[in-house]
Amino acid sequence: MHSRKSGNQSVIFQNPPVILSSFNVVGPKEGDGPLQGSFDEILQDTYDGEKSWEKTEAKMLEKAMRGAAGKVNIPVDSVDYILAGDLLNQIISSNFAARQIGLPFIGLYGACSTMALSMALGAMLIDGGFGSKTLCSASSHHDTAERQYRLPTEQGNQRAMYSQWTVTGAGTVLLSDTGEGPKVTSATIGRVIDFGETDASNMGAAMAPAIADTILNHFQDLGRQPNFYDLIVTGDLGLIGLQLVIDILKRSGLQISNNFSDCGVMIYSPEQDTHAGGSGCGCSAVVLTGHILNRMASGELKKVLLIGSGSLHSPVSALQGESIPAIGHAVSIEK
Amino acid sequence: MHSRKSGNQSVIFQNPPVILSSFNVVGPKEGDGPLQGSFDEILQDTYDGEKSWEKTEAKMLEKAMRGAAGKVNIPVDSVDYILAGDLLNQIISSNFAARQIGLPFIGLYGACSTMALSMALGAMLIDGGFGSKTLCSASSHHDTAERQYRLPTEQGNQRAMYSQWTVTGAGTVLLSDTGEGPKVTSATIGRVIDFGETDASNMGAAMAPAIADTILNHFQDLGRQPNFYDLIVTGDLGLIGLQLVIDILKRSGLQISNNFSDCGVMIYSPEQDTHAGGSGCGCSAVVLTGHILNRMASGELKKVLLIGSGSLHSPVSALQGESIPAIGHAVSIEK
Repeated sequence: MHSRKSGNQSVIFQNPPVILSSFNVVGPKEGDGPLQGSFDEILQDTYDGEKSWEKTEAKMLEKAMRGAAGKVNIPVDSVDYILAGDLLNQIISSNFAARQIGLPFIGLYGACSTMALSMALGAMLIDGGFGSKTLCSASSHHDTAERQYRLPTEQGNQRAMYSQWTVTGAGTVLLSDTGEGPKVTSATIGRVIDFGETDASNMGAAMAPAIADTILNHFQDLGRQPNFYDLIVTGDLGLIGLQLVIDILKRSGLQISNNFSDCGVMIYSPEQDTHAGGSGCGCSAVVLTGHILNRMASGELKKVLLIGSGSLHSPVSALQGESIPAIGHAVSIEK
Repeated sequence: MHSRKSGNQSVIFQNPPVILSSFNVVGPKEGDGPLQGSFDEILQDTYDGEKSWEKTEAKMLEKAMRGAAGKVNIPVDSVDYILAGDLLNQIISSNFAARQIGLPFIGLYGACSTMALSMALGAMLIDGGFGSKTLCSASSHHDTAERQYRLPTEQGNQRAMYSQWTVTGAGTVLLSDTGEGPKVTSATIGRVIDFGETDASNMGAAMAPAIADTILNHFQDLGRQPNFYDLIVTGDLGLIGLQLVIDILKRSGLQISNNFSDCGVMIYSPEQDTHAGGSGCGCSAVVLTGHILNRMASGELKKVLLIGSGSLHSPVSALQGESIPAIGHAVSIEK
């Protein structure tokens, strides 16, 4: 058995799985943003005809899964596994979407790092010979997350200027052992890191050390320099977290800035009043499956490193005085 | 690449990972039960010196992870991945345990199927060449689950006679690509199945169809008969769910009963007043890592099929009128 492990936290795929297709669904606010043209479906309102936002989120996720398979005329039944997760307690969005589709299902919880985690594991299952196709998905919904993590949505509370806005969106990639498309070539699985941040509105600060750690380990494990990639993009650090990561990396001797951005910074315009940017599992899921993969398809980008960034606290852990642990998982995608 | 897939939902490992060691920690009630002698650590009380039950659960899980590595003098740092999950919102027990240990971490949510899921994936990562050692873990705590899923613990509500008692326990197996011990030889990844049960106290009934489906698929995928195994053991169906599964399998033409049992039925004695038996991610985790692996070590059992059984609802989905979806994941362990 030839080892696919490289360094402490990374793996290099021997037969890199192909991203055969992708599909995303977003809410109206995301559809009004600068990435408007890159979404497959934009909901007219945040309910989309359902009685609760939770039901809407599960439906979006199901649409994203079926859409990715449908786009390339792959029968959903020929897929080996669904790997998915979301922010809701007991990941009900993913459970209910998987119930509708009926494929073998692997439920993940990585908070907003979920899209990168599901792609890393989905690629491992294919490269390891455990299947030939995986649907890798993640979702979030602003209103389900807001009332679960923070305050009743109807209350209309004022938000801190450094807080982020949970994206309403679901994204799926269909990975395959054969076919044409960009390939998932390596992955770096993150460690849980906690520098003691306790303000749950300041997730960028809470996540920055874990994300910097994963980035540093990725480059060290693979012996690469940041200029290997055309784009290094984090999941949803937002404006503050992104700046903190740049600072931490600089102090660690890794110069990274020209080709460095964040899905949470990209998804909304400053006029949309989201303060520090977007967040939620759906953020990197819809920016990757839309804007980024489109830029790869056009040839503008050839090598991309996506680092999903997850804040692993719960409302209960915060109330019990725990600080906010975080994690980053990375996947590299090459054409 | 030789495919390890067998049938629709199963995989057969080419270099079956070895269970190098295991460790479990349980609460006082479990320590008073019939499996008393099979636990590595029995807590004196449900707090174990912590200020909240949530902190206790994370500590139990950390102990189980460190204990499994410590038992065979493997430095924790030499392990490639932690795969773990629990019942709490945002799987905080696993996140905080993983924070303390600092290894690459894959967070899972499979409700009470988590132990089997973590072992299935942990074995795939090793057999696929992505690492040589994984810690596969799950935990639950009666009092954290009770107040999250049901009613305030202090209220002392009367429980339905068909309800199950969430186990206070954490269990870990250390899987390795080399060494001596029983081996994880195959796995079957379950589908989410929902027959419309809406009574969240009757989890046995909610889970039975999904568990029967996974068992039927396991035997069909691998071309095996139930007598291939010395023991076929479900995670935590309890008395009612176990009987329902036996009935469903009988109607499907699979005779299974002499060698069939359930961790939730085994962990408590009828005098302990738990009604239909034990449940919770910790249930199959501590029965497997104690009683079952001990019986394998003594030579009494040579081939075991463990089917983790998870109910994938949340309190919110139940309040919104959704029925209870469920899933079963199976791993076979052979000496």
